[in-house]
Amino acid sequence: MPELRKDPIVGRWVIISTERGKRPTSFSSVSKRIAPKMCPFCPGQEDNTPPEILSYRESGSEPNRPGWSLRVIPNKYPALRVEGALDRAPKGLYDKMNGVGAHEVIIETSDHATDLVDMSDHEVRDILWAYRERMLDLQRDQRIKYILVFKNHGEAAGASLEHAHSQLIATPIIPRRVAEEIDGARRYYEFKERCIFCDIVRQEITENERLVLDFDSFIAVQPFAPRFPFETWILPKAHQSSFLEMSDGDHLTLARCFKDILSRLKLALNDPAFNFMLHTRPIDRDSHEYYHWHFEIIPKLTSVAGFEWGSGMYINPTAPEESAAYLKSIDPKKLHDVFPPATIEERG
Amino acid sequence: MPELRKDPIVGRWVIISTERGKRPTSFSSVSKRIAPKMCPFCPGQEDNTPPEILSYRESGSEPNRPGWSLRVIPNKYPALRVEGALDRAPKGLYDKMNGVGAHEVIIETSDHATDLVDMSDHEVRDILWAYRERMLDLQRDQRIKYILVFKNHGEAAGASLEHAHSQLIATPIIPRRVAEEIDGARRYYEFKERCIFCDIVRQEITENERLVLDFDSFIAVQPFAPRFPFETWILPKAHQSSFLEMSDGDHLTLARCFKDILSRLKLALNDPAFNFMLHTRPIDRDSHEYYHWHFEIIPKLTSVAGFEWGSGMYINPTAPEESAAYLKSIDPKKLHDVFPPATIEERG
Repeated sequence: MPELRKDPIVGRWVIISTERGKRPTSFSSVSKRIAPKMCPFCPGQEDNTPPEILSYRESGSEPNRPGWSLRVIPNKYPALRVEGALDRAPKGLYDKMNGVGAHEVIIETSDHATDLVDMSDHEVRDILWAYRERMLDLQRDQRIKYILVFKNHGEAAGASLEHAHSQLIATPIIPRRVAEEIDGARRYYEFKERCIFCDIVRQEITENERLVLDFDSFIAVQPFAPRFPFETWILPKAHQSSFLEMSDGDHLTLARCFKDILSRLKLALNDPAFNFMLHTRPIDRDSHEYYHWHFEIIPKLTSVAGFEWGSGMYINPTAPEESAAYLKSIDPKKLHDVFPPATIEERG
Repeated sequence: MPELRKDPIVGRWVIISTERGKRPTSFSSVSKRIAPKMCPFCPGQEDNTPPEILSYRESGSEPNRPGWSLRVIPNKYPALRVEGALDRAPKGLYDKMNGVGAHEVIIETSDHATDLVDMSDHEVRDILWAYRERMLDLQRDQRIKYILVFKNHGEAAGASLEHAHSQLIATPIIPRRVAEEIDGARRYYEFKERCIFCDIVRQEITENERLVLDFDSFIAVQPFAPRFPFETWILPKAHQSSFLEMSDGDHLTLARCFKDILSRLKLALNDPAFNFMLHTRPIDRDSHEYYHWHFEIIPKLTSVAGFEWGSGMYINPTAPEESAAYLKSIDPKKLHDVFPPATIEERG
């Protein structure tokens, strides 16, 4: 059973998950570039994954058999597990609890060689819809306080398999990064009686210095104080505290926005490794008026070193005004001239 | 001039330092393995660095000429600069100020091929003494609120040159990571009227499950809730809020402790890249009774990915009790059997 442990000084929870396979004597940096035929996320390999929780598939096709276009499965090496009670307990001055939660993988496509930017708008919308469906299901579990959706793309960003996938981890606590945003947004709301994210959206559209896309109901922007070069946020223009409040039609708009910004980043930075994370209102927490859901995208371009670990501050060598201007100058339609989609033969 | 910008939601300051040379169009991951003869930190290359601020050298030798054993210089590409006023200013709802501070490099040895673990106890003590001297000098500057000493060892840990060196960055704000520790320690003190770090030292010695070294006036321990496998903290056993309170004799003991633990980590993990950071009481802040200085050492073994960035939580595949037992089983005296010091010829 994984264990959650709390740092007694700063209150940060960590997940001690020894079942994920690293023994003290076995650290190495061997990477896994797996051929399509051996990839556990490819059609025909369904028996090599835990049974699916959700799939979008041809009508009449059987679960855990080919015929799907998107599949959600439990992570084979989960950081947190669904079974059991929390059993919060002290250990001297320390605190711990059982690693209860959920860890799922969203296999975004059946095609090993297709990335998010190569998919149709509707295929990307389906991924967003799957996030929604899983969040609605998981939030019925009373032990779960938060559901974090994220994607690791490329080995440098922590992906261990190259077949396009995102993940979600449901936690029995509200993660500190989210709690910090909520606390900051609440303080601003107490002072101004306005949502700080709504004010940011307004200022970014007006100033138009860091704005990359103004896309119907969403903007994509380089934030004023980015931790990393080309850090990009996608926010809904209307005030919505939860991803689950998005209207049905907006899923397709958001899919287009995602494809556009990820295409620009791929062209600008020569197919960088990246992470994205969805920040949304916690299930139980009454922050409807001042929290505002958004995606954060961070390309992996610089290293996090001693200063960042020691200070919690970041040194960013690129001004967001510069990266915004550069991203705006790029034509996302040129993506497949520079990065042609894999041919049928190459797909194996 | 670098610029400090504050994230309006969580209050995190970032340093936008475009002079460090990365243009939006020039991200690449070319590494610099520089031959000793070209290394700007080697003797004879003093003209290729900014003039030295401090050096320990043969008596009679001239500044900025060979004859030194340790040298402190301004960073050639500083994240923060000594010149100018802070000029705090708003920009709409955002806050910024000039990037005032200092960024220095401590060249730990004149020998390109020598690492900290290969040095004599007295040479390592000199490094600690140089930290002290620079902190005492810099804290006279009223604009400076904190001085963070850190080391990046190995390319994966962010080091751009292999010649042994550490760095310090003096900042015009108290970094959030330090502020969080101070706030947490203050809350504990208000409740218990005891220093939480002193309580941790006591519990770790008594339990003896995560303790690696009990070394006269210091302990080295795997913390209860480590972010990373083999994360190691070194703490003074006596209550001291600032690194500057350490008695003269303890510098040599700490040097021995450092060499011992770094030798064990090098043997256990096959010469890993690592960072270490010194956390000490801020210059001005009255936290004498409840803060407690310490070093944090983090080997670079796992990747920080979407979950960590999105949540601020960490997934650690190694229990600290396991890594402590493994480190305790290692004989640091075997270091030079496994990693022989470079010969005179190899040193070029």
